[in-house]
Amino acid sequence: MEKTLGQLAEFLGGVAVGDTAAVITGVKGIEEAGAGDITFVANPKYMRFLETTSASAVIVPPDVQPEGKSLIQVDNPYLAFAKVVALFSAGTRDYFGVSPHAFVHPESQVDPQCAVYPFAYVGKGAQVKKKAVLYPGVYVGDGAFIGEESILYPNVTVMDRCVIMNRVIIHGGTVIGADGFGFAHEGDKQVKFPQIGIVVIEDDVEIGSNCSIDRAALGETRIHRGVKMDNLVQIGHNVIVEEDSILVAQVGISGSTHIGKKAILAGQAGLVGHITVGDGAIVTAKCGVNKSIPPGEVMSGFPMMPHKKWLRAMSVAAKLPELKKEIDSLGKRMEQLEKKTDKV
Amino acid sequence: MEKTLGQLAEFLGGVAVGDTAAVITGVKGIEEAGAGDITFVANPKYMRFLETTSASAVIVPPDVQPEGKSLIQVDNPYLAFAKVVALFSAGTRDYFGVSPHAFVHPESQVDPQCAVYPFAYVGKGAQVKKKAVLYPGVYVGDGAFIGEESILYPNVTVMDRCVIMNRVIIHGGTVIGADGFGFAHEGDKQVKFPQIGIVVIEDDVEIGSNCSIDRAALGETRIHRGVKMDNLVQIGHNVIVEEDSILVAQVGISGSTHIGKKAILAGQAGLVGHITVGDGAIVTAKCGVNKSIPPGEVMSGFPMMPHKKWLRAMSVAAKLPELKKEIDSLGKRMEQLEKKTDKV
Amino acid sequence: MEKTLGQLAEFLGGVAVGDTAAVITGVKGIEEAGAGDITFVANPKYMRFLETTSASAVIVPPDVQPEGKSLIQVDNPYLAFAKVVALFSAGTRDYFGVSPHAFVHPESQVDPQCAVYPFAYVGKGAQVKKKAVLYPGVYVGDGAFIGEESILYPNVTVMDRCVIMNRVIIHGGTVIGADGFGFAHEGDKQVKFPQIGIVVIEDDVEIGSNCSIDRAALGETRIHRGVKMDNLVQIGHNVIVEEDSILVAQVGISGSTHIGKKAILAGQAGLVGHITVGDGAIVTAKCGVNKSIPPGEVMSGFPMMPHKKWLRAMSVAAKLPELKKEIDSLGKRMEQLEKKTDKV
Repeated sequence: MEKTLGQLAEFLGGVAVGDTAAVITGVKGIEEAGAGDITFVANPKYMRFLETTSASAVIVPPDVQPEGKSLIQVDNPYLAFAKVVALFSAGTRDYFGVSPHAFVHPESQVDPQCAVYPFAYVGKGAQVKKKAVLYPGVYVGDGAFIGEESILYPNVTVMDRCVIMNRVIIHGGTVIGADGFGFAHEGDKQVKFPQIGIVVIEDDVEIGSNCSIDRAALGETRIHRGVKMDNLVQIGHNVIVEEDSILVAQVGISGSTHIGKKAILAGQAGLVGHITVGDGAIVTAKCGVNKSIPPGEVMSGFPMMPHKKWLRAMSVAAKLPELKKEIDSLGKRMEQLEKKTDKV
Repeated sequence: MEKTLGQLAEFLGGVAVGDTAAVITGVKGIEEAGAGDITFVANPKYMRFLETTSASAVIVPPDVQPEGKSLIQVDNPYLAFAKVVALFSAGTRDYFGVSPHAFVHPESQVDPQCAVYPFAYVGKGAQVKKKAVLYPGVYVGDGAFIGEESILYPNVTVMDRCVIMNRVIIHGGTVIGADGFGFAHEGDKQVKFPQIGIVVIEDDVEIGSNCSIDRAALGETRIHRGVKMDNLVQIGHNVIVEEDSILVAQVGISGSTHIGKKAILAGQAGLVGHITVGDGAIVTAKCGVNKSIPPGEVMSGFPMMPHKKWLRAMSVAAKLPELKKEIDSLGKRMEQLEKKTDKV
Repeated sequence: MEKTLGQLAEFLGGVAVGDTAAVITGVKGIEEAGAGDITFVANPKYMRFLETTSASAVIVPPDVQPEGKSLIQVDNPYLAFAKVVALFSAGTRDYFGVSPHAFVHPESQVDPQCAVYPFAYVGKGAQVKKKAVLYPGVYVGDGAFIGEESILYPNVTVMDRCVIMNRVIIHGGTVIGADGFGFAHEGDKQVKFPQIGIVVIEDDVEIGSNCSIDRAALGETRIHRGVKMDNLVQIGHNVIVEEDSILVAQVGISGSTHIGKKAILAGQAGLVGHITVGDGAIVTAKCGVNKSIPPGEVMSGFPMMPHKKWLRAMSVAAKLPELKKEIDSLGKRMEQLEKKTDKV
């Protein structure tokens, strides 16, 4: 692909500065970019690379204008660059239909405009919609549904009857719809509680690699529209995650917990079951969430506290040995004083 | 399937109340259930739904008898409902034998009454017993053993010579028998310690999705009868987990650690290697287990403490800033007193 | 395989003691070893088994010489035993070429001396070098590179253009090169930042099962020569891990973080993005690394502190309830004293 700086500025709704006829043929990071490349700088920390970059053009914030550089000035350089990268990397995907090396059950419905790779499996009664892509090793169970333009990367498993809506991206090795972890006790014995619910993944969700999203015992586990989930995330049965929430890598959510809209759960956070995390709440990394969180709150630590309280508590915790010494010394001084005043 | 309320009460050994001839055709949660469904209520918190549920019948504890409802009274409604769900959801599985799209080594032994799906692989010298099910993408290595009625869900890997006994359930993406993490040092270089042991999974174990259970360096890693393991659990080489223990999601157990019977390791707990967790011990969520735990103890936190001690310590930890202020103020008052008494 | 004790001593550069003509036919742990087996003891804790072992020979440190035992004395018995195990377990791998049940794109290059198992997939423009092994369910994306003698165990995914160099071992279910977790904000909406970089895994790296190593947004995620990684590890986009570092199970490293040479990250440690861990630094288990670590430092806890400081702080933390009581009692004594001196 080839675009002039002027064309790209127009595409981005930004202001071109310098050689608007410069031909851009690629996108790179500011340290690696060379002739023909466009790059970007958003973080003040990286502004110094503006001096030394060999890029043909740089996307910058509106107020940045180093001498002798060809620029596109935009309000959000990171977003603008994301769009340019998408523009340059957009391949024209080959919807080759169903590979003869795939297995598609005769009683399934697979749109002819799709890509079902060798060794993908589509079960009885399953539906695979237009422009869906099933990479090698993907399993789509009986009666499952894969919506339009959804991409299931290699070795993704979608168990029977689960629903993946439109434009969903699921990275390699993730398992959707395995049985939830539920057992009844009969005396000493654990009796499996059959997990007959499903998982629903709504439009525009992205799920990382090697995640585990369990099917509901009864009813649904549901990941709402626009949720973004990183790798190795654990979602228990009957969990609900509402629109646009973000779950960072290695987060674990126990059964029946409900996450509101636009919440953020940072890496390795763990949540007990049957609680609610309010809209817009933030759980910081490694937090152990043992009770519900009101909307908009920022919580930290283990045990969990409001973030600011946690920061204060932890700054003292680091000084505990000194504090103990102080207490010991106060104790001794107290004793001396007590002796002294006794004499009085 | 269709059963009358009376038939179900008999099946459960419970007491039918109301319309014993009512025909039940399905099972649902109390909020979703409608005409024809049976549901249950065990948790007092959900008793209020008894008023509003549209279910045709409800399984309840013996003392619960709302007016105008058809009921089955049993001691353990959750267990009873699990049994009814199992009854209604029990498909008659189709043991179709070996799919022509599977790969089964000519020198393996696969019982004809089994289900080996397309793209499953059975290696040389492997055995697959009666009514075992290997979903697509399952790998059974050379000389491995899969017992009767065991189910390996899609993309499960069982490495060579590992043994999966009877009625074992392994969910998607789990890897049994990869090499343990062991290296010898030769000067600066790390030399791989060959991992030539195996993994044994005993009868009636259930293992979640995307778990990693490493083979022993020498000897065995062994998961005893009836253990239930959630998703994304890490089991190091030569670990032993004894009967009926429960391992919740994202638990990690380092090499050669020994877990007793009926122990519970809650979510994201981590255990160092070469220690022992006694029978019936409980490790709470996120606990960092750095030393052995006696039978029956409940341990928490990181660093680990007895649970009650941890609760007390943590309630103080949250107030550390206030405590520090108190100490500072005590210090000042002490100084004043000391000055005052000096004058005396 | 059969070797005499004398031959093995020579192979190891050690000193044979006792029956140098004894024939060794196998290797086992000291408790399981029997006639014909060689075993080892390195840990003083296990020396007591020297009395009772039925092994035909034992590899021991130079100063250990129990009566009546056939021995090989070496400086590093664990390393020596690793070498003997490797000697006895070294199969002669069968490089059978490409299975007719595999899918290899006609425009890829696969060395004829390799092992591509049934249901492995090699994409367009991919290269698979001499003596590489692709187990069933392995996916090698378009333009990816698999170096000489590298082994990809079942259901490993290597996405397009990623590079796996020579003698790399990747255990089952691991995903190399899925998209990093990066989104730009456009008002309320999250816009995917296309991840167009790659992953490079250098020579002699070993990666555990069910790990997730994300491709760079731009440029590379790179795991340098000799790194050893355990299971279920999360590596974010653009992370660099330098030579010979060790990452234990369930570690998570956020994007753009840089780990130096010979660093050790213990189990369940979590690292924020955009920081640096110096050469030879050690991060202990479950540590929450929120800032850069200088070379050679040992860090612990959450929040992170220098290890020794953490040990001291935590020993006090366990006694917080007692400390609080002491402070309360000091407060009361202070009040009494203040009253008393007021009267003076």
